[in-house]
Amino acid sequence: MRHDHLITSKQLSRGDIETVLDYAAELDADPSTVADRHAGTLLGLLFFEPSTRTKMSFETAMKRLGGDVVDMGSIESSSVKKGETLADTVRVIEGYTDALVLRHPKQGAATMASEFVDVPLVNAGDGAGHHPTQTMLDLYTIRENAGLDDLTIGIMGDLKYGRTVHSLAYALTNFDTRQHFISPESLQLPREVVYDLHQRQDGTGIREHDSLEEVLPSLDVLYVTRIQRERFPDENEYQKVAGEYQIDADTLEAASDELTVMHPLPRVDEIAPEIDETDYAAYFQQAHNGVPVRMALLDLLLSDDKRIGGDDDE
Amino acid sequence: MRHDHLITSKQLSRGDIETVLDYAAELDADPSTVADRHAGTLLGLLFFEPSTRTKMSFETAMKRLGGDVVDMGSIESSSVKKGETLADTVRVIEGYTDALVLRHPKQGAATMASEFVDVPLVNAGDGAGHHPTQTMLDLYTIRENAGLDDLTIGIMGDLKYGRTVHSLAYALTNFDTRQHFISPESLQLPREVVYDLHQRQDGTGIREHDSLEEVLPSLDVLYVTRIQRERFPDENEYQKVAGEYQIDADTLEAASDELTVMHPLPRVDEIAPEIDETDYAAYFQQAHNGVPVRMALLDLLLSDDKRIGGDDDE
Amino acid sequence: MRHDHLITSKQLSRGDIETVLDYAAELDADPSTVADRHAGTLLGLLFFEPSTRTKMSFETAMKRLGGDVVDMGSIESSSVKKGETLADTVRVIEGYTDALVLRHPKQGAATMASEFVDVPLVNAGDGAGHHPTQTMLDLYTIRENAGLDDLTIGIMGDLKYGRTVHSLAYALTNFDTRQHFISPESLQLPREVVYDLHQRQDGTGIREHDSLEEVLPSLDVLYVTRIQRERFPDENEYQKVAGEYQIDADTLEAASDELTVMHPLPRVDEIAPEIDETDYAAYFQQAHNGVPVRMALLDLLLSDDKRIGGDDDE
Repeated sequence: MRHDHLITSKQLSRGDIETVLDYAAELDADPSTVADRHAGTLLGLLFFEPSTRTKMSFETAMKRLGGDVVDMGSIESSSVKKGETLADTVRVIEGYTDALVLRHPKQGAATMASEFVDVPLVNAGDGAGHHPTQTMLDLYTIRENAGLDDLTIGIMGDLKYGRTVHSLAYALTNFDTRQHFISPESLQLPREVVYDLHQRQDGTGIREHDSLEEVLPSLDVLYVTRIQRERFPDENEYQKVAGEYQIDADTLEAASDELTVMHPLPRVDEIAPEIDETDYAAYFQQAHNGVPVRMALLDLLLSDDKRIGGDDDE
Repeated sequence: MRHDHLITSKQLSRGDIETVLDYAAELDADPSTVADRHAGTLLGLLFFEPSTRTKMSFETAMKRLGGDVVDMGSIESSSVKKGETLADTVRVIEGYTDALVLRHPKQGAATMASEFVDVPLVNAGDGAGHHPTQTMLDLYTIRENAGLDDLTIGIMGDLKYGRTVHSLAYALTNFDTRQHFISPESLQLPREVVYDLHQRQDGTGIREHDSLEEVLPSLDVLYVTRIQRERFPDENEYQKVAGEYQIDADTLEAASDELTVMHPLPRVDEIAPEIDETDYAAYFQQAHNGVPVRMALLDLLLSDDKRIGGDDDE
Repeated sequence: MRHDHLITSKQLSRGDIETVLDYAAELDADPSTVADRHAGTLLGLLFFEPSTRTKMSFETAMKRLGGDVVDMGSIESSSVKKGETLADTVRVIEGYTDALVLRHPKQGAATMASEFVDVPLVNAGDGAGHHPTQTMLDLYTIRENAGLDDLTIGIMGDLKYGRTVHSLAYALTNFDTRQHFISPESLQLPREVVYDLHQRQDGTGIREHDSLEEVLPSLDVLYVTRIQRERFPDENEYQKVAGEYQIDADTLEAASDELTVMHPLPRVDEIAPEIDETDYAAYFQQAHNGVPVRMALLDLLLSDDKRIGGDDDE
C-alpha cells in the first residue's frame, strides 16, 4: 500500500481493496505459508474503548503471522487515568512495538495519533469516525457470498450513528452496486453522508427507505445493524421502532433464496436465532473473516516489499 | 479421550483419569518433550468471572506446549456489556482459536456453550456446577502424596456450595476410597449429592461428620475448603462456625505424620501459615500441579491421535 | 549479578550498574543476538497498581528475548478480591513462571514477597519505596546524553513523595555528580534522604533550591517530575506551586544548548509540548530505553552464567 497508516477506508482505491481481499483469500485458504513470517514482530494494542471481536481478531491475526502483541490493557489500569495525552501515550508505546492498533472514542483520534508516530498505525474505530478493517472484512464477506459487482445491498438499522455503515457505504461506491438504506426517520443517514455518496457514485445507486418490505425481494445482501436503546429518550418509542427492524424466518419468506444476511455483531435481537442455522446467515462467518483480512492488512503494512501500490509510478 | 469437550469429571472413567494423570506425570518429569508440540495453536480464554490461578495455569500450560492464548479479557471491557448472548460470543471466538476454555457464573453454561461450537471446549467452572480440571489436579496431588487406592480422605468446610468438592467426591468413587465429609450442619453436602455418591460407591465409603476430631487420626488426606462469610446472615454465627473448621499446628497433633493437607486456594484463614513449612502442606504443590495436568488435558483434546479411549472398540 | 532478586537500586554497586548499562547498550545496538535466548521462558507479571509503560516495557523486553509473559491481570479480576495474601499469591504464581515482576502499593512488599519465592523477583515499584529498573533506565539515558561522570544534574518537582527521584539520587552517588534538588518547600526531599545522600557522597555534591533560575545555566541534565494535585489541600496553592515548576521554551533560554531534559512520564503539564521536538527533549527516548535496559536485567537474572559479580572472590 502507498499508505504508512490505515486510517479510513476512504483512502483505499478499488485496486487497493482488491489486492487486500485477494491476499486475504490466499491466507484464508492456506495460512501456513505465513506462520513464521513476522516472528519477533510486536503489535501494540491500544483500546481506549471496550471491544471483544476487533481486539481478539487483531491479536489472533498477528499471532497467526508468527508475531505477538503487547496490550495496553483497559484504561482503568493505565497511565491514561493519570491524565496523559493520547499523543504522549502513542509516542511512548511506539518505542516498544513495530506497529500500533488504536481504538478511541473520539472521532479523529487515529489521524491525530498517526501524526506523532513513525510505525504503521491502524485505526480500529475512532468514535463516529472510521473503522476501515471492519469495512474490509465486510467487503470480503460480501464478495465471498454475492460478489462485489452487480450487487444489490440493503443496509438497515441505525444509519445515523453507525460508523460501520458509513465506511462500508463509502467503500461500496468503488464497485457497481445499488445501495438501499432502510431505517426509521430518526436514524437516517446523515445528510452529508448521503451527499458524499451521491458525489462518489451515480445517484441512481443510492436509495433511502423507511421499510424493508418494498426492497427485500431485490436484495442480494441484507446488512443489519443494531438500534441502540440509549438513542431513544422514550422506551416505548424504542420498542416500536426496534420491532419494525427485526428479522426472523417470517420476514425472510419474501427474500430471494440467495439472500445473504450480515451483521457486524454483537446483536441483541435484530436477528432471530432461528436464522442462525439457515443458509442466509453469514454473520458468524463475517466475524471469522476478521482474521484473514487483518492478517493480510498487517502483513502488507509491516512488509518492506509493500504489495499494494508499492510502485512509485502508480 | 472419546470426548470432544471436557465439561464434567462425571464423564471421565477411571481409565480416562489414569491416562491423564500418567501423562501429566510424564510431562511434569520432562516438559521439554512437548515444548514445541502445539506451535501455532491458539487457545481462547473466556473468563466471565474473576480467576487468578485457573486462568494463569491454563495460559502457562498452553505456552509450555508451544502454543499461545487469546484472552477475551474482563467482561467490563467486552461485548458482553452490550448484551451479547453467550452462544453468540463463543461462536465468534471459536473462529479465532483452536480450542476454548470457559468459566461462567451460571451452572450449565459450559454444556450449553459446547453445543454451539466445533472446537474443543473445556469447562473451567460453571457456577455451582463443575470444574473438572480442578478435580484432575486434585486427584493428581492425592495420588502423588497418598495414592488413590485404599485412601481415607476428609473433606472439610463449605460442602454445600463448593463445586470443587462435589466434583472431587464424584471422581473419587472411581477408586477404593473412604470419604469423610466434615462441615457445620448448615453447610452439609446437598442431599442429592450424598444420594448420588451412595449410588456410585458402596455406602460404607461415605460418612458425614460435624467435627474433625473423631476422624482426623484415620486420615491420609485432609482437603480443606473456605467457608464464605457471605453465606451467613449473621457475623457472629459465621465467626463461631468458621473458627471450628480452622487448622493449625495444635489441631494436627492428633493427625498421622503422613497426613497430606490440601486446599484449592485462595485461603483466608482456614489453614494457619505455621502449617505452610511443614511436611503436611501440599496446597502450593497442588496449585502448581495445575500446569502439568492442564498440559496433559489440552494436549489430549488438541491432538488428532487422541490418547484416551481413542479406540472405537473400547 | 550476585543478587537473586532485584529489589532496590541501593543493592547495586557502580560495577553492577556499569555492567547492566554496557550490556543494555549492546542489546540496543543489536537485539537480534538474543531474539531466541529465552525461548520457552515465562515471566509472571503481578501488577497490583495501574501501570502502562513499566508493564508494557517488561512484556516487550521479555518477548524481545524470545520468552513470553503470564499476566495476573488487574486485581479486580483476581483472587486478591477474595482476600488472598500477597505471600500466597506469589507462592502460587512462582510455580507457573520462571521469574516474577511485582508492583505493589505497599512499601516493602517486594522484599517481603521475595522471601517466599525461589524464582528471581524484580521490584517494579513498591509504593513510596523503590523502583530500581526505572533508575537503571534513567542512568542509561543520562549516560547516553551527558555521561555519568563530571555530571551536573537538576532534579525538580515533587521530591518528597517520588520514589523515582530517591532511587535515582542514591544511584548517582556512585558517580562523580553534582545533584541540585529544586522544589517548593512543602515538597522537599525527606530529611533522612538528604542525610543518606550526604553520607554516601561528599556533601558538596548535594544542594537544595526553591527555584530553577539560579542553577539552570550550569546543568547538563534537568530531570523533571510531576507535582500531584492531590498532594495539596488547596487548589490555589497547587496552581501557584505547579506553575513555578513548569518548563517551556522561554524557561530554557537560560539553559546550555547541551541541556538534556528528562521526565519519567506520564506528564501532565510540567513540560510544554513545544519542547518535544527540540534537541533538549530526551523523555520519549528515556521511556523507550526501558526495553533494552529491562532486557539486560532480565537476561542477567535468568541466566545461569550470571554476568554481574558472579565471582565469589569479588
